[in-house]
Amino acid sequence: MPQTIPEDSVGIVTPETIHFDQPLALACGRTLSSYDLIIETYGTLNADASNAVLVCHALSGNHHLAGYHSMEDKKPGWWDSAIGPGKPIDTNKFFVIGLNNLGGCHGSTGPQSINPDTDKPFGPDFPIVTVPDWVESQVRLADHFGIKQWAAVVGGSLGGMQALQWSIDHPERLRHCMVIASAPKLSAQNIAFNEVARQAISRDPDFNDGHFYEHDLVPKTGLMLARMLGHITYLSDDGMREKFGRDLRQGTISYDFTPQFEIESYLRYQGERFSTAFDANTYLLMTKALDYFDPAAAFNHSLPHALQQAQCKYMVISFTTDWRFSPERSREIVDALVEAEKQVSYAEVDSDHGHDAFLIPNPRYMAIFGAYMQQVAADIPAVKEAN
Amino acid sequence: MPQTIPEDSVGIVTPETIHFDQPLALACGRTLSSYDLIIETYGTLNADASNAVLVCHALSGNHHLAGYHSMEDKKPGWWDSAIGPGKPIDTNKFFVIGLNNLGGCHGSTGPQSINPDTDKPFGPDFPIVTVPDWVESQVRLADHFGIKQWAAVVGGSLGGMQALQWSIDHPERLRHCMVIASAPKLSAQNIAFNEVARQAISRDPDFNDGHFYEHDLVPKTGLMLARMLGHITYLSDDGMREKFGRDLRQGTISYDFTPQFEIESYLRYQGERFSTAFDANTYLLMTKALDYFDPAAAFNHSLPHALQQAQCKYMVISFTTDWRFSPERSREIVDALVEAEKQVSYAEVDSDHGHDAFLIPNPRYMAIFGAYMQQVAADIPAVKEAN
Repeated sequence: MPQTIPEDSVGIVTPETIHFDQPLALACGRTLSSYDLIIETYGTLNADASNAVLVCHALSGNHHLAGYHSMEDKKPGWWDSAIGPGKPIDTNKFFVIGLNNLGGCHGSTGPQSINPDTDKPFGPDFPIVTVPDWVESQVRLADHFGIKQWAAVVGGSLGGMQALQWSIDHPERLRHCMVIASAPKLSAQNIAFNEVARQAISRDPDFNDGHFYEHDLVPKTGLMLARMLGHITYLSDDGMREKFGRDLRQGTISYDFTPQFEIESYLRYQGERFSTAFDANTYLLMTKALDYFDPAAAFNHSLPHALQQAQCKYMVISFTTDWRFSPERSREIVDALVEAEKQVSYAEVDSDHGHDAFLIPNPRYMAIFGAYMQQVAADIPAVKEAN
Repeated sequence: MPQTIPEDSVGIVTPETIHFDQPLALACGRTLSSYDLIIETYGTLNADASNAVLVCHALSGNHHLAGYHSMEDKKPGWWDSAIGPGKPIDTNKFFVIGLNNLGGCHGSTGPQSINPDTDKPFGPDFPIVTVPDWVESQVRLADHFGIKQWAAVVGGSLGGMQALQWSIDHPERLRHCMVIASAPKLSAQNIAFNEVARQAISRDPDFNDGHFYEHDLVPKTGLMLARMLGHITYLSDDGMREKFGRDLRQGTISYDFTPQFEIESYLRYQGERFSTAFDANTYLLMTKALDYFDPAAAFNHSLPHALQQAQCKYMVISFTTDWRFSPERSREIVDALVEAEKQVSYAEVDSDHGHDAFLIPNPRYMAIFGAYMQQVAADIPAVKEAN
């Protein structure tokens, strides 16, 4: 519990749910007749709606980017380190929107929502959603606020993929695109890890082919295993060595299958906590959106060709020990942007935190992030005098 | 099926089971009152038993190193590429022994064996076995054959750990030690992957706390997940990219959870095949032997100090794309040997096959392996004339 709200926090925030009535045609061929998006906003939208920043979330993220929901909250939103007055995404300058993506489990329409056709939860019948689908749903969110052009679309990991897709699909609707700890598409190894997680969930007997809500069950083991595995890929080998090494919980080996190494109990704890907090059907959907992401595919598999569509400026950031989406993957994006003759800045930040580094403040990272966002702020057009 | 047995094969081979009556005290404090080891041998033991090579197996390996069990066999033993007439471990020169380790599921005493105290299978009550325990059981195997000193002890991965342990625990009983694609101890990340595999198995409802034999069940899902995950760590990111990339089985995305990418169906197939072929309790034991391996621990956590015990010469081999036990881990062993003033050769072999590379013939690897084994052969003492 924060005894007092820190001065550089956005403070107590309240989510808002926006209903969209216009049907949304999805890449899979199905249509959502209507949908809700739950969002949070920080800062103030200026008169010509030119100071808006969209922050897209990663696999298990949501709309709660910054601040606290109540004085009793133990932790702030997931990117509180980067968003607030005086922080890299400075809420004194920007109007920031965070949302929970379609298919999510934090308030936007997803597998837990009631399917209007059946009056029961969608469950496994919720359509597969893709990164381009999310971008389309976010276009309507921009329209809702009268935002014709984002000052920036920003995201890490799967969030960075959404930012990249925005720049290709709606070039005129963003001035800056920030892609952090991301990749232009998943590798076979990335897909392989996702597939193990999916098998763990879908073969959990409590999953019931995704209809577990009706049985009042949760496929806890599957979700736990998926999260444990995910966690290994979010941390770096070096970071794990430094944080846990071969440290033993009780100092000695017990020659049994109880957790003995610190890393074992850490992973079990993380897995168990996640298994009761996240929806299994959403987890499956998010991993599919990752696997299917491949913006170059529609351009004869040429990423430079895909990025030629873009009109914005780019900032790409990677982290030295990230092996889920390594610096090489960010450099693929940068090289394609250079080839497409786009304006791109790139920073590779030293960090021991692996993929998780994009969530963890680090002086150099925050300085680079903040410096670029100052450029984004400088590019906000002066509000024209009312006629 | 081999229509004909290749000329450089050891041919049709028959395993042999050796019973050991002398109780074996284990590191965990428990004692096996007696035990069986299943073995295979190739080549001929010379008169003073000085040409014997022990090959130790990795996590899911066994005693069947080379040759065929029948003309109907589709595949030869797991290291057939390295063992046979004219091959690196030349059976014209060496007498080679392969065994299934204690705790295994291929014929040596293990969880599926009958516990003499209960007349039921040991199941989860089989004691935790360690690398030093295996070495002690192998010492008796040497004694059984009258082998006072191995020409070499050789192994890859967990097998390399046994070779290393031999050189520390019984310095006078081997002239050469070959440690391939191994590590002096597991990292936190290595342990973490093992722990996910263990949780997948032990939380499978069909595992029944390890008593699944009595219920005529097999924890197939758990074993499948463990193997899928293991497989990802055996292959390299580059190798997977080259072999599978983002290739689709049917050419198009189907927007559902059926396997669509080649890598997905490959992993499912590997996992499913393994789930009916390997024992879950053995899998748990093998991962624990890996986690607990730490020969430096008894020497104030100094690996050079541990290796000062040794009297043999060493060959250490690593593979460029192995990220389970990377070249850095082999160099730790080499550096410690240099510090301990031992004679060591080291080769880092280019390969796209990741950790699996130690099982896959590659001209440079086989040439290096063979050249070193020629040195091992040259060090076989001339048989003394009978008095």
